Amino acid sequence: MLSREDNEMLTRTDADTPMGRLFRSYWLPVVLAEEVSTPDCAPVRIKVLGEELLAFRDSTGQVGVIEPRCPHRGANLFFGRNEEGGIRCAFHGWKFGVDGECLDMPTLDAAAVPRMCQKARIKAYPAREWGGYVWAYMGSETVPPPMPDMEFALVPASHRHVSKKFQECNWAQAAEGGVDTAHFSFLHQPVDRSGEQLHEKAARATRGYSQQTMSSEHVQWMRDDTRPRYEVRKHDSGLVLGASRRAAPGQSYWRIAQYLMPCHGYTPSATPGQTYHGQTWVPIDDESCWVYVYSWNPERPLTEEEIRGYRSGGAVYPEMDDRWMPLRNRSNDYLIDRQMQKSENFTGIVGVSEQDAAIQDSQGRIADRTRELLGPTDIGVVQFRRLMLESAKALAAGEQPPGLASPASYRVRAGGIVADAPLAFDEVMQRRFGDPLGRF
Amino acid sequence: MLSREDNEMLTRTDADTPMGRLFRSYWLPVVLAEEVSTPDCAPVRIKVLGEELLAFRDSTGQVGVIEPRCPHRGANLFFGRNEEGGIRCAFHGWKFGVDGECLDMPTLDAAAVPRMCQKARIKAYPAREWGGYVWAYMGSETVPPPMPDMEFALVPASHRHVSKKFQECNWAQAAEGGVDTAHFSFLHQPVDRSGEQLHEKAARATRGYSQQTMSSEHVQWMRDDTRPRYEVRKHDSGLVLGASRRAAPGQSYWRIAQYLMPCHGYTPSATPGQTYHGQTWVPIDDESCWVYVYSWNPERPLTEEEIRGYRSGGAVYPEMDDRWMPLRNRSNDYLIDRQMQKSENFTGIVGVSEQDAAIQDSQGRIADRTRELLGPTDIGVVQFRRLMLESAKALAAGEQPPGLASPASYRVRAGGIVADAPLAFDEVMQRRFGDPLGRF
Amino acid sequence: MLSREDNEMLTRTDADTPMGRLFRSYWLPVVLAEEVSTPDCAPVRIKVLGEELLAFRDSTGQVGVIEPRCPHRGANLFFGRNEEGGIRCAFHGWKFGVDGECLDMPTLDAAAVPRMCQKARIKAYPAREWGGYVWAYMGSETVPPPMPDMEFALVPASHRHVSKKFQECNWAQAAEGGVDTAHFSFLHQPVDRSGEQLHEKAARATRGYSQQTMSSEHVQWMRDDTRPRYEVRKHDSGLVLGASRRAAPGQSYWRIAQYLMPCHGYTPSATPGQTYHGQTWVPIDDESCWVYVYSWNPERPLTEEEIRGYRSGGAVYPEMDDRWMPLRNRSNDYLIDRQMQKSENFTGIVGVSEQDAAIQDSQGRIADRTRELLGPTDIGVVQFRRLMLESAKALAAGEQPPGLASPASYRVRAGGIVADAPLAFDEVMQRRFGDPLGRF
Repeated sequence: MLSREDNEMLTRTDADTPMGRLFRSYWLPVVLAEEVSTPDCAPVRIKVLGEELLAFRDSTGQVGVIEPRCPHRGANLFFGRNEEGGIRCAFHGWKFGVDGECLDMPTLDAAAVPRMCQKARIKAYPAREWGGYVWAYMGSETVPPPMPDMEFALVPASHRHVSKKFQECNWAQAAEGGVDTAHFSFLHQPVDRSGEQLHEKAARATRGYSQQTMSSEHVQWMRDDTRPRYEVRKHDSGLVLGASRRAAPGQSYWRIAQYLMPCHGYTPSATPGQTYHGQTWVPIDDESCWVYVYSWNPERPLTEEEIRGYRSGGAVYPEMDDRWMPLRNRSNDYLIDRQMQKSENFTGIVGVSEQDAAIQDSQGRIADRTRELLGPTDIGVVQFRRLMLESAKALAAGEQPPGLASPASYRVRAGGIVADAPLAFDEVMQRRFGDPLGRF
Repeated sequence: MLSREDNEMLTRTDADTPMGRLFRSYWLPVVLAEEVSTPDCAPVRIKVLGEELLAFRDSTGQVGVIEPRCPHRGANLFFGRNEEGGIRCAFHGWKFGVDGECLDMPTLDAAAVPRMCQKARIKAYPAREWGGYVWAYMGSETVPPPMPDMEFALVPASHRHVSKKFQECNWAQAAEGGVDTAHFSFLHQPVDRSGEQLHEKAARATRGYSQQTMSSEHVQWMRDDTRPRYEVRKHDSGLVLGASRRAAPGQSYWRIAQYLMPCHGYTPSATPGQTYHGQTWVPIDDESCWVYVYSWNPERPLTEEEIRGYRSGGAVYPEMDDRWMPLRNRSNDYLIDRQMQKSENFTGIVGVSEQDAAIQDSQGRIADRTRELLGPTDIGVVQFRRLMLESAKALAAGEQPPGLASPASYRVRAGGIVADAPLAFDEVMQRRFGDPLGRF
Repeated sequence: MLSREDNEMLTRTDADTPMGRLFRSYWLPVVLAEEVSTPDCAPVRIKVLGEELLAFRDSTGQVGVIEPRCPHRGANLFFGRNEEGGIRCAFHGWKFGVDGECLDMPTLDAAAVPRMCQKARIKAYPAREWGGYVWAYMGSETVPPPMPDMEFALVPASHRHVSKKFQECNWAQAAEGGVDTAHFSFLHQPVDRSGEQLHEKAARATRGYSQQTMSSEHVQWMRDDTRPRYEVRKHDSGLVLGASRRAAPGQSYWRIAQYLMPCHGYTPSATPGQTYHGQTWVPIDDESCWVYVYSWNPERPLTEEEIRGYRSGGAVYPEMDDRWMPLRNRSNDYLIDRQMQKSENFTGIVGVSEQDAAIQDSQGRIADRTRELLGPTDIGVVQFRRLMLESAKALAAGEQPPGLASPASYRVRAGGIVADAPLAFDEVMQRRFGDPLGRF
């Protein structure tokens, strides 16, 4: 439960807010690299942290993230022509490069140009490609921080798949869904007390995801133990969150997630050798966000079958249209099927991503955290909020945010393991990752 | 004409308003019983007096009207599973009964449950089935009042038909249309000064309604006398409103409506033996309402033909889609046909209900009563406003609202009669209903 | 660049604003005459300067522009029946003439009618047909000013074509597009540095307009000289704005526009004998406007081919649906074709009108003029703003607005000419129009 003030601080990310400043301290993915796929391609309207921007790629292949307003008469550069080193405004031909510099002012005499060009510089955020996304640094430092060493960006392109999905609620409640691994006992579960069809129903409810990554026992353990025990450790770039459930006698089934500053989460299921998944929640505004979703395998290229699955709604990906809008969304109640909810799975909604979105969106455009009844299974959520609020306050007090100076602190993994029940969390981490915090 | 303050008081029904408190003193229909037709059926989102609620029917068949917010993390119980005695939240499995009690908290240790269950109780309004609707009592008394003895609810189910229709304006101007019987001289009239096709045109304009309930003379009398004389009597549960028009020489055609607290109206046409019709205007919010529409015959089951008629837009029912949205509505100007308006009927719109909705909606989302020019034919409207405002003020002063303690005071009827012109209103009532106030 | 205060003054036109009062001093077109084509036709909802009104034509053929609210109970007269000399409210039959007089009150005794009729008068603005439009005078003077002698209204009906188009931004930035003739060097230009296909590409980008009115040289001169020199002269009813570009050696290509109070603009292309075009920007509200578009030839009837062209998106007309909504609009990014933008024309949008709308709308619903970088090619825009602001302020100080008392001051023309380069503007005007201000 948060005070009204803290809930506001957690959820508001405009430029003049503490959380907005915290987000702006980091590089953030703002568009898929494939959306600006070729030199001089069409510019793309984007909205990040409440700011309307334009992403494009110039003739040399450099990506740019600029304010879309031509300083001459205020026309929108979205309608401009992306040509020979910059975007030319369609109204009177002023032209701008990826760094915001005004490159041409054909309405002015040559003599007047140099002085006016200084005034005509537009806001441009440093932009880079990294791991299949275009990232922008929207902060105030003249030298941006280094890019974070997130593993999906470090592996060869063939080892990863990247996409995004639109979500119709505030970033923070979507992110909380990522650190809350307790909800798998209901939200993603089949309805099958007898257990006879457990694995098949789970597979249908998750479009095969559970079957690809878990045994029937894993699903059963999650069904049967609805009170996972949480262990949370803070590290240089965020939090590692372990939650254990009773498994076979004498054993615990651990699911271990990572939360990385300011808005990245890794899912807790993968066992060694399996493909990893992550999500990055970037506010469009305070009532919607882009969830950048990615999968990677450190050891091998992704298979065609894996990628086909991700493209059709497998794993943490929803079924989407060609604008990355989930087919199951707020406007159609996520195509909830009440008959399916009776006999097949707990929500009557198909797809892990869709189930998450339905319940997170249902908390409201911006969840009201002033009325909640938290318990031990919500420790992950509590720690996440604390990390974010403390970091925002510390930044306001002049301290450097976690992970910012150390790209290597992002070299961590998340995943699952079955271990002897008495084993302490640090030992479990050591056994699963060779490191108590999941570092590699 | 009302002051701005009185217009606000009449039209605003949120929980903290005088009219909102008056409405909340009574049982109100909130959903069709058929919308929650079977035990454990899908819960239904409803909005009543500005409050978002959830209606459902539990495994034992009991109906419930609850706030939809799970107190754990704020997820919406609409996505919950209606199962074995309650709705289980899809996020982490907390479960709630029709009375709002928390029945299960699977994320908590058994020891912690009893204390948390107390905190986790959610708001639940007493709910009952009555006359084919689910009613809720949203007031503050611990013991709700008795259900009103409205005749449609007292007769056997085979003797009644119930439905509802969506209306896109404030409840009060829709209700005013019910007490204003003067408008039949224009709004529902054919265009036929010669009178040759009067009855046929009236029938086409009303989808047969006028033909079923009136003779050609009735229609003619309403066309020819556009200044009905009003007589209004207050009784224990509301108002009886008579309006007489010149009929055959020496005779008067009386149409007598009832208005029952807080928002029920009976139509004035029925002669003895005919089927009665009523409407109940329940605010969704201050700019739209559900009109619960019902028909009943005290003496016999409704015929298949009658019901077929009601289902296809006869009597006071509009043509609707399967979500009770009239096919002719604000967005399409009620499919007004200007050629029909020239030659057939006064509005160019088909259907009594549609004609009412068009003109009432046209008064604005909330009618501005500070600029009006009322006359003698508006006496019914004036008396209705007075009743509502006085009742709201009296309640605020600690008095009990009309009819609340006396279910029997709702045993009244409305209808029409042709009587000798000199006959006083009380005599007319006696002759038509055997009682000066229409009681039975 | 304007101060925030001046930008507000320029763009706000509600009844209680300085610019609103200035607009209301003049006759304004409010609907096409063809929209109320016949006596007793269907009334038409219109919105002018933020006011909801009803336009209709009575049985005698007179046009009326009235407030749509029946003073009895506030029903909307849009649903009324236009019959025998007035509109009759569909609710209770009150009836109103084109002058707002209440003609019938069937709910009242004859004795009460005369006094009530006085109170029941509704607001009606003087309305007249002029040049194919219905115009209204929404000002406070009891005697409206004379109609302006705009040439398109003076020529025989066969010599003109009139239409309108919806535009999704404030009137002033659309009007600025009309006085800014510099933008033709980019917004309407083909992409063809070599010049081989210049004329063909220009024709395709403008749906034949450039080909009909210009030679290949004209297009080339506009492409090559992106810094036209402005000359602006104030006259009794507005401004004449000349802009010259380098043409063949020793020659200048002059394009001369007119801006007439309060919101009329004539395009600068026509050479003697060619058909003229004009636009009148009338605010619907402050975020959208109707652009009344008209073409006329003083010397001859328009040809069928010309009219066919205007109806299908030629000249300054867009392709539209039957409600005058451009097919290329804000909601579909004007169907911008990025491939076309690479190889054919500067915007990738087809149609002069559509190109104008795209770039003007892109300045925002209401352009922010507090951040601009104006230069010599923006002199027309600057002078337009000055004229409007000074006129609004002068009116507030009790002075009469320009042109109001003198219909003949609207007898001016606009157009293009190639002249010897050293020729002064006044001489050029004399040569093109026989008058230094374009008067005829």
